[in-house]
Amino acid sequence: MRSSITTDARAVAPLANAPLALSPLAVSLGDPAGVGPELIAAAWADRAALDLPPFLVAGGAHVLEAAAKSRGLDVPVRIIEDPREALAMYAHALPVLGAGGDGRYTPGKPDREGAALALHSLELATSLALSGAASAVVTAPVSKAALAEVGFAFPGQTEYLAHACDVPEDDAVMLLAGPSLKAVPLTIHVAISEVAGLITQELILRRARVIDRALRRDFGLAAPRIAVAGLNPHAGEKGRMGMEEREIIGPAIGRLIAEGIAATGPHPADTMFAPHKRGTYDVALAMYHDQALVPLKTLDFDEGVNMTLGLPIVRTSPDHGTAIDIAGQGIANPASLVAALRMAAQAVAHRAASR
Amino acid sequence: MRSSITTDARAVAPLANAPLALSPLAVSLGDPAGVGPELIAAAWADRAALDLPPFLVAGGAHVLEAAAKSRGLDVPVRIIEDPREALAMYAHALPVLGAGGDGRYTPGKPDREGAALALHSLELATSLALSGAASAVVTAPVSKAALAEVGFAFPGQTEYLAHACDVPEDDAVMLLAGPSLKAVPLTIHVAISEVAGLITQELILRRARVIDRALRRDFGLAAPRIAVAGLNPHAGEKGRMGMEEREIIGPAIGRLIAEGIAATGPHPADTMFAPHKRGTYDVALAMYHDQALVPLKTLDFDEGVNMTLGLPIVRTSPDHGTAIDIAGQGIANPASLVAALRMAAQAVAHRAASR
Repeated sequence: MRSSITTDARAVAPLANAPLALSPLAVSLGDPAGVGPELIAAAWADRAALDLPPFLVAGGAHVLEAAAKSRGLDVPVRIIEDPREALAMYAHALPVLGAGGDGRYTPGKPDREGAALALHSLELATSLALSGAASAVVTAPVSKAALAEVGFAFPGQTEYLAHACDVPEDDAVMLLAGPSLKAVPLTIHVAISEVAGLITQELILRRARVIDRALRRDFGLAAPRIAVAGLNPHAGEKGRMGMEEREIIGPAIGRLIAEGIAATGPHPADTMFAPHKRGTYDVALAMYHDQALVPLKTLDFDEGVNMTLGLPIVRTSPDHGTAIDIAGQGIANPASLVAALRMAAQAVAHRAASR
Repeated sequence: MRSSITTDARAVAPLANAPLALSPLAVSLGDPAGVGPELIAAAWADRAALDLPPFLVAGGAHVLEAAAKSRGLDVPVRIIEDPREALAMYAHALPVLGAGGDGRYTPGKPDREGAALALHSLELATSLALSGAASAVVTAPVSKAALAEVGFAFPGQTEYLAHACDVPEDDAVMLLAGPSLKAVPLTIHVAISEVAGLITQELILRRARVIDRALRRDFGLAAPRIAVAGLNPHAGEKGRMGMEEREIIGPAIGRLIAEGIAATGPHPADTMFAPHKRGTYDVALAMYHDQALVPLKTLDFDEGVNMTLGLPIVRTSPDHGTAIDIAGQGIANPASLVAALRMAAQAVAHRAASR
């Protein structure tokens, strides 16, 4: 296979503190064995119809070219050395920053080389956003197990980003956002039997404060309405099915209101995601993983976005994994990545507007 | 207010073991302070457009007449003494069985008199279904607290029906059913902190067997596909977030399959209710209340039906409570009651067809 990748030879000094409107989004490649590269190529191929914001990919030119071919897409990949080149190039080629650290395209077969490439791309994309050379970082899905094998010391990309941004992990908050719903889980990857023991007033306050600030800054909401879910059926029904609502969640909501945060609840989880309720708040603060993820994926499976609130940089991600089982088959849906690109650009615009 | 209720004087001997097609559905009144009576009147008023199956109401003629007036509906209420009269009368009047035990219409104000009427109606409707004089029972919502004050010794109507049908409470299984989804919660009104301790192989087997038999009999499915949810995030992710999937749920599914029941899982709860997954099973067996109720009410809030599986009689109910706060205001939505009437009639037809 003859490569169509070209390298732009003009060397341009790195760009710091550029105005946001002049910076592209930086997209990390994700694991080359997963669907990330082909979805990036598919999004670029449809950029005009979707009116996508300009983005560059941090490394992985050969992988991207091969992934595009696997989907039958005509995607000219072009290596750039300065992020600013991406803005003009984006209309006619997929800009990839840096020729180094590239690898093979091996869909469905994770290996250490691929994991190393994914890690390099994540680190590069993050550093571009931190320096201002990129306006935001959009991360494609990685294999956590494969990353661990090449020395990645974090449970996931979100924790890495918190570390890179010097933010405490507890203040890097996962928001799941789709066209129908925004939701934050208070506790995430813990067994149901452990959830009740982890719910504290302090944790609710901490999460809600991050949410409040982030929805003002990244979504332009003047007073974000946070609907806090109960933990138990019927939000405990006056203590008949659990006391957490009375002893922890309710008092925490009272303290948030006293701080001027537009929190309500605790709301019975079964009804709070119904159509006539969803319009009454901007974000739901759920008590556990599935309380947030079930309604989100039930409503917005294809278009859900994972956004990290509380970081100095804007970071979004498609709300799906590497989907190793369907990688390279041309059937993976780019809708979530497309939504992640759009949401990142919108957040960048909101931040810029409030300066 | 002059009553337009008329009593049909013809005394007809009670009907036993009538062919199903000749029996109306029996609807219980529900608490007169709630939305039950007005929704029954509203359903009857729209019976032709909705093509509703013929039903009678067990008592409460004056309440029904007043409730209809409160919604501005022209509903002639007629007292009958034999359920068979309902079939012909249904086209031009709302048939109410029995003149006794009537009460006042006091929307928004539950009292003992109303609770006694609701209880009388529930008992009468149930006995009609048990005798075959009615083809099924459809129960309007009651106030559990008010019922307890008039000597009702059950936590809810479902437990009463199990008792009246001489079925163990554990074998009277709550199915939530909407146009998009059918779901059964394994555990129901318990705190989240107690859920994990209640999940046993025996309980899963018992519920799934009732579900399997009921979906064959009441929905005409030859081999009902039961998708069993995991308890923990990502269905435990190979034991990393809880062991219940490996130690309890998975083995129970294996035993169900060995019995010839089409069970699958444990499925990660967050994705199993997504659009492309919902078509792969007939019913979801969820591990706890909100795992079943959140997707159901998110998708089918207005049209959800509560059906009790495992009884010798067909029993459905709207999937909402008394809604005391909006009773008498003419704004309560009859869609769930309408769906409950339809689902009952369809179950009756499936049972009749399989004889």
